[in-house]
Amino acid sequence: MCVLGTGLIGGSVLRAATAAGYRAWGFNRSSVGARAARADGFDVTEDLSSALNRAARTEALIVLAVPMPAVGQLLSAVRTHAPNCALTDVVSVKAPVAAAVREYGLGANYVGGHPMAGTAESGWAATDPELFRDAVWAVGVDAGTARQAWTTVVRLALDCGSVVVPVVADEHDRAVARISHLPHVLAEALARAGANGGELALGLAAGSFRDGTRVAATAPDLVRAICEPNSVALLEVLDETLRALGAARESLRANAHLGELVDSGHGAREEFDRNRRWEITDIRVGEDNWLERLREAGRRGGVLTRLP
Amino acid sequence: MCVLGTGLIGGSVLRAATAAGYRAWGFNRSSVGARAARADGFDVTEDLSSALNRAARTEALIVLAVPMPAVGQLLSAVRTHAPNCALTDVVSVKAPVAAAVREYGLGANYVGGHPMAGTAESGWAATDPELFRDAVWAVGVDAGTARQAWTTVVRLALDCGSVVVPVVADEHDRAVARISHLPHVLAEALARAGANGGELALGLAAGSFRDGTRVAATAPDLVRAICEPNSVALLEVLDETLRALGAARESLRANAHLGELVDSGHGAREEFDRNRRWEITDIRVGEDNWLERLREAGRRGGVLTRLP
Repeated sequence: MCVLGTGLIGGSVLRAATAAGYRAWGFNRSSVGARAARADGFDVTEDLSSALNRAARTEALIVLAVPMPAVGQLLSAVRTHAPNCALTDVVSVKAPVAAAVREYGLGANYVGGHPMAGTAESGWAATDPELFRDAVWAVGVDAGTARQAWTTVVRLALDCGSVVVPVVADEHDRAVARISHLPHVLAEALARAGANGGELALGLAAGSFRDGTRVAATAPDLVRAICEPNSVALLEVLDETLRALGAARESLRANAHLGELVDSGHGAREEFDRNRRWEITDIRVGEDNWLERLREAGRRGGVLTRLP
Repeated sequence: MCVLGTGLIGGSVLRAATAAGYRAWGFNRSSVGARAARADGFDVTEDLSSALNRAARTEALIVLAVPMPAVGQLLSAVRTHAPNCALTDVVSVKAPVAAAVREYGLGANYVGGHPMAGTAESGWAATDPELFRDAVWAVGVDAGTARQAWTTVVRLALDCGSVVVPVVADEHDRAVARISHLPHVLAEALARAGANGGELALGLAAGSFRDGTRVAATAPDLVRAICEPNSVALLEVLDETLRALGAARESLRANAHLGELVDSGHGAREEFDRNRRWEITDIRVGEDNWLERLREAGRRGGVLTRLP
């Protein structure tokens, strides 16, 4: 397996796959990051073509693990050196990656992926072979997905300790706008509001402020690279949220009440706490409508915990 | 010491003070809560007048530990049974409590307090004698504060393991609107946005959504009781936040960029992480302008870690 980009997510995939017995190597553009990985005994090079030529020779799975803005450049090299390898990614949005993959003519062996794990840290130093343990890993079931590449990608996710949610690209992107990108935006706004209160406010801040602003500690360039490629879906849920907050604001102004936001928010959090994964067991890869059936199951909260 | 209300905060004060060697007893309106406390060996009654008569006899400190809407009723009983006791509170806002205390003619021995600690749980079952360990406890330094009552309240906070931030009521309320009440409002809105994405979105949700919605698990009545008495300050910071989010929304719509929100939010969170308490050591209780000097020190991030 060949991981392109050995930052927090890619580096952790490299570690987790190696721990699971994969023969895995990587490429990292920055020599600082590559050297750090090599110092820990991993086979990471700054030479992209050599990493890809080895992937082509060994028919390895290639994992794109860079922020969206860097994806095109890597795909260009994949097209040149290893166009027939199975290809996946761990980027935070799926439709823009899929569009780029098609643009480079690499769609036939591509299956999108997105492990829902991370920290506010970044870089090789933050990597952790256990990062994906018991996490959810979204894997694409878009129309035209090739069986073999799909099986390879699901196996990687399972071998890294995750469960797999089957999902198509646009539904993934709308979902993560709600549960990953909006949290970033609100955390930034909350951090700002707190700091605008000066040392007194920051000095009084406790758990709710600390938790609510945790992801604002993420490097700004990374936040932009995560959220901005999903601008359409993020805009939709941000508008929805501004309407809800605006209604609470009006109610607060008119009669010092927060209105229905509190009850609906509490009910929503209870729904989240009650939400249980269930195991998809009745769908076989390649049977009639297997992709549609997996997509339907994923929509209803189903996950794969073993290869079907 | 007499604690009126033995829910999460009041009950934890009772436990912490008892552990620190105080002779402490309590009142709880609900007999379920009172029985639970008694079953754990604490002296908690449903008889408010007997608890207060004992406080009057022993010149005990009285701690109001109920949500804002229940404060008036308790003050009425304090006026009847124990009007000369030192009086403090652990309510989430300070100016409305101070106004109610004055209304009942109990201002002379009152010093406001607010330990910045809590969980999404509530009731006696959630109490913890260590809840205030290394927490910040805001203590009033409003004009006219009596030395003796102030010293008694600061000693309680320190004996419970906290450090003390000296602050006047209106500045406290504006600060907590930013770092405690706004986090509640944003958490409710985020939880709602997530649940509106259905089982797929909730199933993909990971750490950032969990942390960002944690306080939405708080009982709705408690959230309202915490936030709504501070509606003026909350409205001000909510408007400020809606403007910041609105600007990000416009930028996202116009050019798929989040604008300056990300950098300013990240800088704000860094400011929070860098923020260090420093110890106030040069102010003596009762010296000229001691209240003003403590207020100034609190504004600049100073805390008391021992009785001055």
